[in-house]
Amino acid sequence: MAATQSKPVIIGVTGGSGSGKTTVSQAIYHNFSNESIMILQQDAYYNDQAEMTMAERRAVNYDHPLAFDTDLLITQLKQLQQYKSVEKPVYDYTQSTRSDKTIHQEPKDVIIVEGVLILDDQRLRDLMDIKVFVDTDDDIRIIRRIERDIKERGRDLDWIIDQYLATVKPMYHQFVEPTKRYADLIVPEGGENRVAIDLLTTKIRSILMRKKNGRAQNSTQVI
Amino acid sequence: MAATQSKPVIIGVTGGSGSGKTTVSQAIYHNFSNESIMILQQDAYYNDQAEMTMAERRAVNYDHPLAFDTDLLITQLKQLQQYKSVEKPVYDYTQSTRSDKTIHQEPKDVIIVEGVLILDDQRLRDLMDIKVFVDTDDDIRIIRRIERDIKERGRDLDWIIDQYLATVKPMYHQFVEPTKRYADLIVPEGGENRVAIDLLTTKIRSILMRKKNGRAQNSTQVI
Amino acid sequence: MAATQSKPVIIGVTGGSGSGKTTVSQAIYHNFSNESIMILQQDAYYNDQAEMTMAERRAVNYDHPLAFDTDLLITQLKQLQQYKSVEKPVYDYTQSTRSDKTIHQEPKDVIIVEGVLILDDQRLRDLMDIKVFVDTDDDIRIIRRIERDIKERGRDLDWIIDQYLATVKPMYHQFVEPTKRYADLIVPEGGENRVAIDLLTTKIRSILMRKKNGRAQNSTQVI
Amino acid sequence: MAATQSKPVIIGVTGGSGSGKTTVSQAIYHNFSNESIMILQQDAYYNDQAEMTMAERRAVNYDHPLAFDTDLLITQLKQLQQYKSVEKPVYDYTQSTRSDKTIHQEPKDVIIVEGVLILDDQRLRDLMDIKVFVDTDDDIRIIRRIERDIKERGRDLDWIIDQYLATVKPMYHQFVEPTKRYADLIVPEGGENRVAIDLLTTKIRSILMRKKNGRAQNSTQVI
Repeated sequence: MAATQSKPVIIGVTGGSGSGKTTVSQAIYHNFSNESIMILQQDAYYNDQAEMTMAERRAVNYDHPLAFDTDLLITQLKQLQQYKSVEKPVYDYTQSTRSDKTIHQEPKDVIIVEGVLILDDQRLRDLMDIKVFVDTDDDIRIIRRIERDIKERGRDLDWIIDQYLATVKPMYHQFVEPTKRYADLIVPEGGENRVAIDLLTTKIRSILMRKKNGRAQNSTQVI
Repeated sequence: MAATQSKPVIIGVTGGSGSGKTTVSQAIYHNFSNESIMILQQDAYYNDQAEMTMAERRAVNYDHPLAFDTDLLITQLKQLQQYKSVEKPVYDYTQSTRSDKTIHQEPKDVIIVEGVLILDDQRLRDLMDIKVFVDTDDDIRIIRRIERDIKERGRDLDWIIDQYLATVKPMYHQFVEPTKRYADLIVPEGGENRVAIDLLTTKIRSILMRKKNGRAQNSTQVI
Repeated sequence: MAATQSKPVIIGVTGGSGSGKTTVSQAIYHNFSNESIMILQQDAYYNDQAEMTMAERRAVNYDHPLAFDTDLLITQLKQLQQYKSVEKPVYDYTQSTRSDKTIHQEPKDVIIVEGVLILDDQRLRDLMDIKVFVDTDDDIRIIRRIERDIKERGRDLDWIIDQYLATVKPMYHQFVEPTKRYADLIVPEGGENRVAIDLLTTKIRSILMRKKNGRAQNSTQVI
Repeated sequence: MAATQSKPVIIGVTGGSGSGKTTVSQAIYHNFSNESIMILQQDAYYNDQAEMTMAERRAVNYDHPLAFDTDLLITQLKQLQQYKSVEKPVYDYTQSTRSDKTIHQEPKDVIIVEGVLILDDQRLRDLMDIKVFVDTDDDIRIIRRIERDIKERGRDLDWIIDQYLATVKPMYHQFVEPTKRYADLIVPEGGENRVAIDLLTTKIRSILMRKKNGRAQNSTQVI
């Protein structure tokens, strides 16, 4: 059964906070229904901080690569790559640590990995077939972040700006922006970019079709 | 006959000199054989300079938008868009003017327009369905230009550098680079980028398939 | 009297909205007291719009080069360059046009010209001895603009963002940023940059000293 | 003797290979004669590789921060800062290791530290009063490097390009360019930039004058 033995295709979608990488990933994902595709969000893989006090948790720099349990993400991606199911972690933002729950995830033919720092670790990059950097001007990104944090999260403008300047921006320049060099494809202006979303959707549709046909042929051959 | 009335898809591929835009366009094109696809190179649309003396021709800035007969390119693109054939101009580099010959071009389902300044004119941009900017670092581009001009064209290193600094570079910054803002997709590192070439190839294959099926259905309906 | 015949030194300070160019100019200026130095702000040279209705005035793109009476700025700079006094225009922001008043300006040995578009016109550039571009990241600039417009001008966040996206940002990319190429000196992070302010202050102090000494010598010689 | 106890002023001048940082440093330095100013070149502080075989020496990445004996540079800078003399190392390019000779260096009032990676180490940055980044486009830098290596060092074009792509360019993006963020002043286009050279020269002249006057006053007070 050659086709099912062939690996799933892994597509990484990254970019800074407010770049539109989530919108792009979701737009692609929702172009499919009942098909063998899934999204893995790096945010779910924040470190388990159960052993830490709340004060310690608040002091963590959540925009730094070390805030993520990258080993777990790699382990689970490798299992999914072998068409094995995994128990995805769930992050509890109210407690700033991993929740007790997990989400059962069946393997799929196409895996979209989305997050701010998914191209920073070479082991992650080596797992990916297509690496996409959603590139949006810094001013647009902070505007989107302000609008989202005020409207959706009811936060104070000063607080948003302070946090942005204290960690989001320096970490972006130090860790996120340099990963643009690893991208196969740079998508300008994120979620609004219908042409780029369509191109990636077409590619994924073609992959899914080929894998489905492969399986059909194999079962036919069996008969 | 709905399908044949639907317009061809026009894909613009641009980038600076030495960016790899020609390699990308050719690599995509050569992924197809005997299919309804064509390339239109902006270089063929340099102005007809028959009325000018050789001295005047030598003094022309060939990296400036006004060096091109953009009106003719637009006219022919619009004809191809209506599935009408055109007589493509041929540029004679030895005489630095348009040659007397033309090349007969039948209409195709997919048209790749490739050139250094194809996103500068809004009328051209408005004709395009997918706009690609091949983005390669300035140092890599001058290195490629030097290697190509020395090996393929037997030119002198000093002459290549002088010409680059006198016109290629200033025109790039003034006219080419600003068109990156209009791109739907930025392809880093040009001709080496197999993932980006594969994505565009897959998209084109899907377009060609749909158009072919459209025509097949129509002819069935006729029967 | 050789020294007084020698021209004043003209220093241009530019940068995008919120870059800190005004802070830099003011910080330099306030390092001197009772000395022969002045600031000319491009904002005072917005067009006289007396002939226009209020609706027309509101529709003007105030971030476009054509919003400024650059001819008047050049004329007055040339007069100041010949040590002649000028009547500086005053802009009335409540009426969006030039006010009836003017400010009498005596000539000075050092003239700082400050504004968003002072390096766009070649005639202006040619008048300048030192051209400074205050270069601050786009996200910092919009943050400063938001903070200033909310706190100092009592404006609404949505209004500020809409205006920024509609005119400030596109005009910055089209007209302001490209003038960075003409700068002799790029000052990162604007008003906070004490080292750059100190360097420019030291230069100006040296110019003023030389001119003062020149005049002293001349008057001595007369005696 | 307050004035002589005050520290020398340390000015760092960095930028990529071919940026013009050496030209800028030399042009400033040669504006002074018989005055208390010196240049320290980072290149002299390459690691002592006496223990290594020639094969090992050839395999070293000389564009990486670890190729430099930064500890020695810091130690000597701190001694010079206390107005103590040092024995500067001399690098033997023919043997790719430190030579047995040293150069005796008396302390000076102004120290220019020049090199490709002098802003990478925070301890070095903390010693500097003025940090200058000479910023020149990548294509200009490789052109200068090609011209210099062919004309002055008789090297082969292919060899120059291979070395540039193998180490110079990747190390520049990874280690040199990110230090631009630490600069107080960005000088575009290097050695040709007379205005920037004049500004730095004026600043240094003012420092030297103040220190000299300080010493003169002190000796007067003694009397």
